[in-house]
Amino acid sequence: MGIRSDMLAMGDRAVAASRELVTVGTKKKSAILRAMADELRKSHGPIEAANQKDLEAGEKIRLSSSLLDRLELTSGRIDAMADGLDEVARLADPVGEIISEWVRPNGLKIDKVRVPIGVIGIIYESRPNVTADAAALCLKTSNAVILRGGKEAIHSNRAIATAMTTGGRDKGLPDGAIQLVQTTSRDAVRELCRMVGRVDMIIPRGGEGLIKAVSEQALVPVVKHYKGVCHTYVDQSANLEQAMNISMNAKTQRPGVCNAMETLLVHEAVAAEFLPEIGKRLESAGVEIRGDATTRLHLEGVKAATEKDWSEEYLDLILSIRVVSSAREAIDHINNYGSHHSDAIIAESDAVQNQFLKEVDSATVYVNASTRFTDGNEFGMGAEIGISTDKLHARGPMGLEELTTYKYVIFGKGQIKE
Amino acid sequence: MGIRSDMLAMGDRAVAASRELVTVGTKKKSAILRAMADELRKSHGPIEAANQKDLEAGEKIRLSSSLLDRLELTSGRIDAMADGLDEVARLADPVGEIISEWVRPNGLKIDKVRVPIGVIGIIYESRPNVTADAAALCLKTSNAVILRGGKEAIHSNRAIATAMTTGGRDKGLPDGAIQLVQTTSRDAVRELCRMVGRVDMIIPRGGEGLIKAVSEQALVPVVKHYKGVCHTYVDQSANLEQAMNISMNAKTQRPGVCNAMETLLVHEAVAAEFLPEIGKRLESAGVEIRGDATTRLHLEGVKAATEKDWSEEYLDLILSIRVVSSAREAIDHINNYGSHHSDAIIAESDAVQNQFLKEVDSATVYVNASTRFTDGNEFGMGAEIGISTDKLHARGPMGLEELTTYKYVIFGKGQIKE
Repeated sequence: MGIRSDMLAMGDRAVAASRELVTVGTKKKSAILRAMADELRKSHGPIEAANQKDLEAGEKIRLSSSLLDRLELTSGRIDAMADGLDEVARLADPVGEIISEWVRPNGLKIDKVRVPIGVIGIIYESRPNVTADAAALCLKTSNAVILRGGKEAIHSNRAIATAMTTGGRDKGLPDGAIQLVQTTSRDAVRELCRMVGRVDMIIPRGGEGLIKAVSEQALVPVVKHYKGVCHTYVDQSANLEQAMNISMNAKTQRPGVCNAMETLLVHEAVAAEFLPEIGKRLESAGVEIRGDATTRLHLEGVKAATEKDWSEEYLDLILSIRVVSSAREAIDHINNYGSHHSDAIIAESDAVQNQFLKEVDSATVYVNASTRFTDGNEFGMGAEIGISTDKLHARGPMGLEELTTYKYVIFGKGQIKE
Repeated sequence: MGIRSDMLAMGDRAVAASRELVTVGTKKKSAILRAMADELRKSHGPIEAANQKDLEAGEKIRLSSSLLDRLELTSGRIDAMADGLDEVARLADPVGEIISEWVRPNGLKIDKVRVPIGVIGIIYESRPNVTADAAALCLKTSNAVILRGGKEAIHSNRAIATAMTTGGRDKGLPDGAIQLVQTTSRDAVRELCRMVGRVDMIIPRGGEGLIKAVSEQALVPVVKHYKGVCHTYVDQSANLEQAMNISMNAKTQRPGVCNAMETLLVHEAVAAEFLPEIGKRLESAGVEIRGDATTRLHLEGVKAATEKDWSEEYLDLILSIRVVSSAREAIDHINNYGSHHSDAIIAESDAVQNQFLKEVDSATVYVNASTRFTDGNEFGMGAEIGISTDKLHARGPMGLEELTTYKYVIFGKGQIKE
């Protein structure tokens, strides 16, 4: 009961703040963001001390070195968080934009206006910089935010949140606009995503387990940031040297991220020419290959891919390869096994390109480019709160616009319905 | 287990159909819609016979006369359904529209393209014409649809669905594109809204109970069409004659619909002048008034409103009235008790208008017009699948565009991430 009533009270404060935020203009929001950045810069001491506590606790429970690395807040990373806030302050404010407007025959003027969503719940894991980034993007779009970070980063997150609210308060940050869940109990997550009427959207960011748990418990709409099982399909019409470069980039440039390639599909007509060469390059980059039967005819000593491999998000230097007999088969493979995130075709044929772009049911589809470009910054959005693998509300990279909704504002002169 | 596996199989057929539908062009979809309309016109006999069965069963279980009226398919209503299909055929096809396009400094060309959502589940109650309307709008937008109508209309719905699929098949309607759940068991609803990966969106249309049940069970995203507790606020700056006309229209022109006014808020400065006159007009229109204490000072013999009245959707000739001391109080009342559907201010003051439009958190906000205009046709959308009271994906009237999502289509020339 304690957690429940605490969360409901937090929700009430967030709703009150969200109503105040619709009256706060762009200039004031920018001033708040800059004050928050300044306060972060002044708070190296307390933030690093808090972070040290989390790191020590993490070592005690033997967190992996990559998790410890994500958790660590060096002086440089604290400055980068502060700089991030200043950058968000400089972005254009989407709130109030008139998306479209028209006049009806009866004289009613209808404006479709971009407005904040209200209260957003962000549930995330180890990286404490998300605390600053997410709060800044929500504030920029006049949304109140309830942040629920990982247990392992609780001291760091508290120190960051304290610096931000302290810095923002003098410039008019409404009470309750940025709140961090203080308990590390999982019950708080459950409450947060069931507070219909107090929370308008939940964004879970993290591993598959987190996202599944949130989706299954939620009553509030969730925009999921699920895994990326991304494909590159090398068509028979491909420029093979280009296919080689793009595939190597998609797999090896940064294998631990959701837009890295996990499965390479190769048309049988070019398999004999393409596979041995890419096999060599992958091997020298340290990539483990798991191939279907035909791939293994062309690449000796390669492990057999199992059915499970086709839907695996390795996030590592591992690649599954399958030879297909047509673009049709490649498209079907992607739609059946993929995660509808980012998929590319390497082809010179317009007809095959168009078929792929139309029929692959993914948030982002590429012709002759690396899937690694699926990213708010690469899209020119200026900021990114995540990459949605859902189809509703937002699909693909989510920037500031995707943290807004709209309302219809209608101007009449006494019109009544006949 | 039988219902579960039947529903999953239905979902698989819908997914297969949705993949085929992305390859079906506008002309072909129009031909299918017209063939469906023709077949409905040829099927008066079987549809009326099926409807007779539903009506008899309905009388046996003593359905109210208004429910029986909704259920009845007269010859004229069948023709109207068919005409509706022809109208949908004539609407512009939103699929394939390039919503925006830009080129990045690295030469990548990004198109944000409107695409179908995939598989849509529609769960609705007694009106059998929804079967035809919803199927047509989904087909027009290249979505596969699974229809789950009310138990009381099952024979009518089957006859309509059969006519549509029979009519469409010869013109290339994909198998599984329009499916009606055949069982009347509630377990089917549960399965339908939990088929993640097979269903992309659920639209529930009906009473509060239905929508609540669906939202609570759903794992698939739901776009809710909840109740309409709509307000008209008469400011002290209002033109009172205009306020009178608009209020009467919003309450009495068609009280049984979601955009009718349920609560009238009156500024205290005009209460003495406004209330006695509107009270007379409401009384002669047969409207029962439930007022707060101040209202009852001005209107003798009026029932006292209880706390419950302020959030009640009467859908009837009943109106709650409250006197407020400021626009601020009116806005807070609407945000606290309303359903975020449609709310109007009657005011001449620009400042008060703007405050109301900005701060009332509703899908549609009006200045000096009746809330009765919240409607896809009145907005010029050409068609309406419902009115969303959610903030995500779609808000307010949902037309064809709101049955689509988007994908990013990216054209490269070998770009790789640095």
